[in-house]
Amino acid sequence: MKIIRRKSRVVKIGSVCIGGKYPVAIQSMVKTKTSHIEKAVQEIQGLKKAGCEIVRVAVRDSSDAVGIKKIKQRVDLPLVADIHFDWRLGIKSIESGADKIRLNPGNINKEAQIKEVVHALKAHGVPLRIGVNSGSVRTFNDRRSSMADKLVTSCLNYVRIVEKLRFFDIVLSLKGSGCLDTVEAYRKIAKRCDYPLHLGVTATGLPLQGAVKSSIAIGSLLLDGLGDTIRISLTDESRQEVKVAQIILESLGMRTFRPEIISCPTCGRCEVNLVKIVKELENRLSTIDNRISGRPLKVAVMGCVVNGPGEAREADIGIAFGKREGLVFKNGKPIKKVAYAQAVRALLKEMEAKWRLRTLKK
Amino acid sequence: MKIIRRKSRVVKIGSVCIGGKYPVAIQSMVKTKTSHIEKAVQEIQGLKKAGCEIVRVAVRDSSDAVGIKKIKQRVDLPLVADIHFDWRLGIKSIESGADKIRLNPGNINKEAQIKEVVHALKAHGVPLRIGVNSGSVRTFNDRRSSMADKLVTSCLNYVRIVEKLRFFDIVLSLKGSGCLDTVEAYRKIAKRCDYPLHLGVTATGLPLQGAVKSSIAIGSLLLDGLGDTIRISLTDESRQEVKVAQIILESLGMRTFRPEIISCPTCGRCEVNLVKIVKELENRLSTIDNRISGRPLKVAVMGCVVNGPGEAREADIGIAFGKREGLVFKNGKPIKKVAYAQAVRALLKEMEAKWRLRTLKK
Repeated sequence: MKIIRRKSRVVKIGSVCIGGKYPVAIQSMVKTKTSHIEKAVQEIQGLKKAGCEIVRVAVRDSSDAVGIKKIKQRVDLPLVADIHFDWRLGIKSIESGADKIRLNPGNINKEAQIKEVVHALKAHGVPLRIGVNSGSVRTFNDRRSSMADKLVTSCLNYVRIVEKLRFFDIVLSLKGSGCLDTVEAYRKIAKRCDYPLHLGVTATGLPLQGAVKSSIAIGSLLLDGLGDTIRISLTDESRQEVKVAQIILESLGMRTFRPEIISCPTCGRCEVNLVKIVKELENRLSTIDNRISGRPLKVAVMGCVVNGPGEAREADIGIAFGKREGLVFKNGKPIKKVAYAQAVRALLKEMEAKWRLRTLKK
Repeated sequence: MKIIRRKSRVVKIGSVCIGGKYPVAIQSMVKTKTSHIEKAVQEIQGLKKAGCEIVRVAVRDSSDAVGIKKIKQRVDLPLVADIHFDWRLGIKSIESGADKIRLNPGNINKEAQIKEVVHALKAHGVPLRIGVNSGSVRTFNDRRSSMADKLVTSCLNYVRIVEKLRFFDIVLSLKGSGCLDTVEAYRKIAKRCDYPLHLGVTATGLPLQGAVKSSIAIGSLLLDGLGDTIRISLTDESRQEVKVAQIILESLGMRTFRPEIISCPTCGRCEVNLVKIVKELENRLSTIDNRISGRPLKVAVMGCVVNGPGEAREADIGIAFGKREGLVFKNGKPIKKVAYAQAVRALLKEMEAKWRLRTLKK
């Protein structure tokens, strides 16, 4: 199965292009106040290290808008200004060097105000995200439509206003707080235009529920070929949002970040403490620089002979545990047997020998 | 958006029906040895408490097969015997009272052996799962097919053998270790027969990666209307598998287990410690019996005025925090303002008043 991506327009956000054939970009949003420069810079640096490629900041007032300028002097990730209620903060953020502006049709919707912002966007060559959310969608006296249709209608009305101003550097998002609304809204809007899509589910909750909801909705849409940038919303640290985003893209074979560890759930057949071994291996492999490994290294750690040899054979390096020892596979062939306690060391040794992974954590 | 489920044949596993219009059933697999009766019973009781509806056990030898009989005297969940390599263990498990047998076409595939097992299944009125996995799929000299096609071919060949024996109480699974293989295989098999589908991704790895992979593949398939029972494989405790399964089904509006908490990711606009409040609320709501709440209670906890009032209005009970206090919503209407520190207590009080949730954890 191959994912055939929708043909979308290319939009450039600072140094990062999204849309077209560009890789699906990962973004997150800073949870500290934008005007608290020191803390915000620290969070953004952590996000970058985690693999975030575009970062958004809230702009509540002038001090936040001015903050963008100061932050940009110290970080090199594209910065998106999140604007609500007050269109003038959009202009100020553009003047401060924001690389993209997000407007919410639910709270800035007067044509004259939109015109002012678009004018500034054009003057500075900055793109716009039209970001509709279920929590703030305007219904325009439409009480009978489904949530998905409300999101689509609100978004398309806004697109038309902006297009009338001959501005087309647009990214769209239509986030519901539920999976069904979100999937329906994005599927519908995708047929109506070629603007790149920023995928996300809004207000998904605590980490596990949030990861599951986001994976279902964003995963299904990416499988459909929709989506040019993704943001996972979690009631948790922002770096965790990036991690989940990476796993989603890796699971669909769309991006490569870390070695993939295939490991079984274990059952009554398993004689070894597999959880411990896999955790140790994940920890040891977590510092591999994907530019060194080049492609996703696939490592299989399997608890018994049922699916063990098969999965180990399909991986670059694998181990299938049996009674008392494990059989190590490399490039699809069994190469040696090792005792349980030597398993992690043996796998790492083979990996280092083959891929020169000098950054393996000791 | 409504999920339109594929019309599948109904198969009865002990007291639980799957297929047709029956709810998608949650299953898991015991990680302790089946012959360690005391421990196995304990794990199954924990699984039942967590919401597991069908439970599978590994049968490696005669002592495991005999163990099924002893376990069945002490637990009332339908028990599925997982059989590999030795068809005679299938017969022994059926005689011990197993409620379903899982055979793997990768390691039990001689027609004469299958015939013996099917004969016993018929005699005892027990259904069969034909469970193909990427780690043990037989390719029958077929080296050029994709993994998904191998899974489908292997499964359909087996189905034909069993159908020739005039046995049709069949459930199918085609688990790849990757999302793309898995989704493709299930989509293809769904068009070729009407047997109920047991969905799962095999060997997904540690909890977070496993939850994400499973949510993408199983979520997408459920959205397509496919799937009659699901099993989440995690290199983690089996109860955690049930929790993830529940969240997947809840997120798609297919089942109801616990109150749903909608909460925002927070950003620079948020003045309150939302993570702490949501965690406390989740903990307090975790003991609500869904038979009391009847339908999924929807609770929104939002950090600011952008999407806060909107999501809180859409929920049964909600709170949108502003500067210094939160505005509580009930049935879509704002009812009162409360200080940050009183938020959880205020929400619980409103819920207790409305739904008589006497089981709220104090």
